[in-house]
Amino acid sequence: MAKSKFEYVRDFEADDTCLPNCWVVTRLDGRNFHRFAEQHGFSKPNDDRALHLMTKCAQTVMQELEDIVMAYGQSDEYSFVFKKKSNWFKRRASKFMTHVVSQFASSYVFYWKDYFKDQPLLYPPGFDGRVVLYPSNQNLKDYLSWRQADCHINNLYNTVFWMLVQRSGLTPVQAQDRLQGTLAGDKNEILFSEFNINYNNEPLLYRKGTVLIWQKVNEVTTKRIKLPKETEEKEVEVTRTRTKAVPLHCDIIGDQFWEEYPEILADS
Amino acid sequence: MAKSKFEYVRDFEADDTCLPNCWVVTRLDGRNFHRFAEQHGFSKPNDDRALHLMTKCAQTVMQELEDIVMAYGQSDEYSFVFKKKSNWFKRRASKFMTHVVSQFASSYVFYWKDYFKDQPLLYPPGFDGRVVLYPSNQNLKDYLSWRQADCHINNLYNTVFWMLVQRSGLTPVQAQDRLQGTLAGDKNEILFSEFNINYNNEPLLYRKGTVLIWQKVNEVTTKRIKLPKETEEKEVEVTRTRTKAVPLHCDIIGDQFWEEYPEILADS
Amino acid sequence: MAKSKFEYVRDFEADDTCLPNCWVVTRLDGRNFHRFAEQHGFSKPNDDRALHLMTKCAQTVMQELEDIVMAYGQSDEYSFVFKKKSNWFKRRASKFMTHVVSQFASSYVFYWKDYFKDQPLLYPPGFDGRVVLYPSNQNLKDYLSWRQADCHINNLYNTVFWMLVQRSGLTPVQAQDRLQGTLAGDKNEILFSEFNINYNNEPLLYRKGTVLIWQKVNEVTTKRIKLPKETEEKEVEVTRTRTKAVPLHCDIIGDQFWEEYPEILADS
Amino acid sequence: MAKSKFEYVRDFEADDTCLPNCWVVTRLDGRNFHRFAEQHGFSKPNDDRALHLMTKCAQTVMQELEDIVMAYGQSDEYSFVFKKKSNWFKRRASKFMTHVVSQFASSYVFYWKDYFKDQPLLYPPGFDGRVVLYPSNQNLKDYLSWRQADCHINNLYNTVFWMLVQRSGLTPVQAQDRLQGTLAGDKNEILFSEFNINYNNEPLLYRKGTVLIWQKVNEVTTKRIKLPKETEEKEVEVTRTRTKAVPLHCDIIGDQFWEEYPEILADS
Repeated sequence: MAKSKFEYVRDFEADDTCLPNCWVVTRLDGRNFHRFAEQHGFSKPNDDRALHLMTKCAQTVMQELEDIVMAYGQSDEYSFVFKKKSNWFKRRASKFMTHVVSQFASSYVFYWKDYFKDQPLLYPPGFDGRVVLYPSNQNLKDYLSWRQADCHINNLYNTVFWMLVQRSGLTPVQAQDRLQGTLAGDKNEILFSEFNINYNNEPLLYRKGTVLIWQKVNEVTTKRIKLPKETEEKEVEVTRTRTKAVPLHCDIIGDQFWEEYPEILADS
Repeated sequence: MAKSKFEYVRDFEADDTCLPNCWVVTRLDGRNFHRFAEQHGFSKPNDDRALHLMTKCAQTVMQELEDIVMAYGQSDEYSFVFKKKSNWFKRRASKFMTHVVSQFASSYVFYWKDYFKDQPLLYPPGFDGRVVLYPSNQNLKDYLSWRQADCHINNLYNTVFWMLVQRSGLTPVQAQDRLQGTLAGDKNEILFSEFNINYNNEPLLYRKGTVLIWQKVNEVTTKRIKLPKETEEKEVEVTRTRTKAVPLHCDIIGDQFWEEYPEILADS
Repeated sequence: MAKSKFEYVRDFEADDTCLPNCWVVTRLDGRNFHRFAEQHGFSKPNDDRALHLMTKCAQTVMQELEDIVMAYGQSDEYSFVFKKKSNWFKRRASKFMTHVVSQFASSYVFYWKDYFKDQPLLYPPGFDGRVVLYPSNQNLKDYLSWRQADCHINNLYNTVFWMLVQRSGLTPVQAQDRLQGTLAGDKNEILFSEFNINYNNEPLLYRKGTVLIWQKVNEVTTKRIKLPKETEEKEVEVTRTRTKAVPLHCDIIGDQFWEEYPEILADS
Repeated sequence: MAKSKFEYVRDFEADDTCLPNCWVVTRLDGRNFHRFAEQHGFSKPNDDRALHLMTKCAQTVMQELEDIVMAYGQSDEYSFVFKKKSNWFKRRASKFMTHVVSQFASSYVFYWKDYFKDQPLLYPPGFDGRVVLYPSNQNLKDYLSWRQADCHINNLYNTVFWMLVQRSGLTPVQAQDRLQGTLAGDKNEILFSEFNINYNNEPLLYRKGTVLIWQKVNEVTTKRIKLPKETEEKEVEVTRTRTKAVPLHCDIIGDQFWEEYPEILADS
């Protein structure tokens, strides 16, 4: 059986190398997650279980794949930033995006029960992804700011919307009509005057989303050992320093975050 | 918070529309599946549970996504053929490949226990994917032939290799040395003379891989109903005709398959 | 001086290989040719000198470059069809388009005086170009039909427009208003009833544009030779068969052209 | 004649937008200029007429097209740098490269006689071009350094090579053998000891190539005017400040050039 006769078909594979010296951002979004959230009883406007599961998956992606310097997630989306100099899989865009989404998707099912306990997963969810290149640090920061601003806008809207539905008994259509054309200030005012909610006291997780950065952490584990001259085992605590993808829920639009963690953009 | 100030970053997203009127093939491969197979005790050279799980995932992909006319799988890879005229997600390559790999990956974990029973899944596996375009029917058939020829070559090699290791007690290195430079005929001869195995009697699943095509099938389900004038429920059989992705283990290199299923290439 | 230190910049060159087994069409257009035509006194609606110069340049492109099977031109544009199997410069799109436009542009200036005689060329003109891939023969024929239909539509419009301006003394704006919303039949009627012109008798060059295809032609040249036993030279005619890019002005939308010249699409 | 029936073919045109916020470099090279130089009697190793004609064409390109901030040329090649923020033709790569090469090619023929006087142009030359993106200023400077280092290396080689051929009477093959494996120092030594040439005294045009940058220049023109109260015309000199593409032959590898002309990289 002549293998070589068919191998010419490999020439049809197009090269999709990412331009060097650019930040490579891979963003993924849940497919039809509106329906998925309903069928799995997600609480509204935010479901802590779902948000923490998303972050667990993102941590797995960062730990399993190479060269990711940070990630940012909100709602059913997550963005991963590969370092400018990354040469992982020769910078092929298809490799970046398929490894990220497949690792994320399999982790989502794998870790589901750790977060959703008695709520069974009814079917395997899908995600879509894309790769975008950002040449300068400012472009990258603006990209992340864009996503965090999106988080804020959506969360403020959703917080008021679900208050109107859940507490004031409006139908979704009525709530939508009520919010039509309102500005941020109007929405804050509704929350405060009608529901006694100061939006700024809402959890940072909801208002800012989740930033994952690499941090050294001390892990303390307990080991049972037997010393040479003793007859019985005893427990000792062992402290190990590891580098982990740690979640933060802070502002990344202003300068403070970037001044505090200059190593992220250093990309040496 | 000015969302618009940051939205310029959307202009950095490149268009990756697939050329119209070409077959769009998305192939995925397991990431580090050599290690994955070892850690999960896959039997060698072929593990039926793993092969059937792969096919279950591929069926899920075909059922969940649009416009896939057939699929072909072997070992830890699967290829999906989207129809020439598909305009799914405006033919964007990133959409084709990320939806395929993420749906496949989440299904792999979701359906794992149905096939692997007591063997727990130790960690969530990753897959990589790519998109390749084939302008003509002949190019597409040659692509699929290339993969099936690859299946044959690898399976013949692996069958002899593992016989030498498992039955003759050779170390992997010794088995590799023994097979160095042998042709297909030599390998068939070793199988026959030393292990009394006629390679052509090996299961088609191993030798030909798996083709998934859409077929109308009659599904018989049992329902419990209570008729108006009766007091007790009774069971009835309901027959429904559905279109399903059905697995075949046949040759797709010769003309016979394509003559038998002309609708695959018709793509009207 | 370390050359190697800088050579990394070559990695920034993106691969732009054209998908194999597709027709590669390169189309060029004159840049700002409306202004160019005015400044060089082109006659309206068609200038024979300009049209023939365009075709001379296209013939030069076909003769100088590789693998062009035909060309089609009208107004200030020309399309070149490279054969499906062409591997010229490894099918790199940038090579196809820059070789075509630069050869065309230099030829335009070089041959200008052969067609424009006393009208001097005032400045060097520019052209832009692009590469488009067509997977099937039908796609290619439809592309060429699109250009020829465009030629017809524009030429019919321009013929009436300039009659109204040149013979009826309308201003360009008045002529434009007059033609606003008219169909092909209306324009034919104006030509016939007001100017006694039967559009179908207009020159094919204007109505159909120019097709360039490779044809064997006999070239007769006169040579002066001296035969061994004679003392004086004498003139003899020498006939040589050459393959040249020959202009036709025929319909290429219907089947007849393609049936008459099947070798164009044969692409063996 | 239905135009619309064919217009679907426009969907086959791929988007080739250049990534925003990157320097867009378009480089062109003469096609088969080795042969072209021989047939037109270029002096070796450098022909001043040819080098000045190249620069005249590059100036025309800079004046005619938009957004070019500088150019660098040597031998039969020229690179044009479009500014990072350029949105000329929506940053489509095909537009950048075809406009540059076609304008260059037509200018080459148009201005030929101004530089080559009695040497007629025998045929229209071709050029090829490409587009490369550079994300950072350092990448751009390194690109230009690469080209200037290339100029130096080639010119040193060619200077010695042609001395050996023209003055020492070596055949080209002998000269090539003589230079096989020599380093820059060896070549300098041959020039000095055998031909009494100090390479550093060779013209900067040859050693450094040509940089074109925008500079304000005062142009003095003579006009004939007639003042109201006078009966005869008189000549007056009129001084106008214009921005022109001015040629320099200086080092662009070190920092000095970039410090002297910071506006080039400012690209605000």
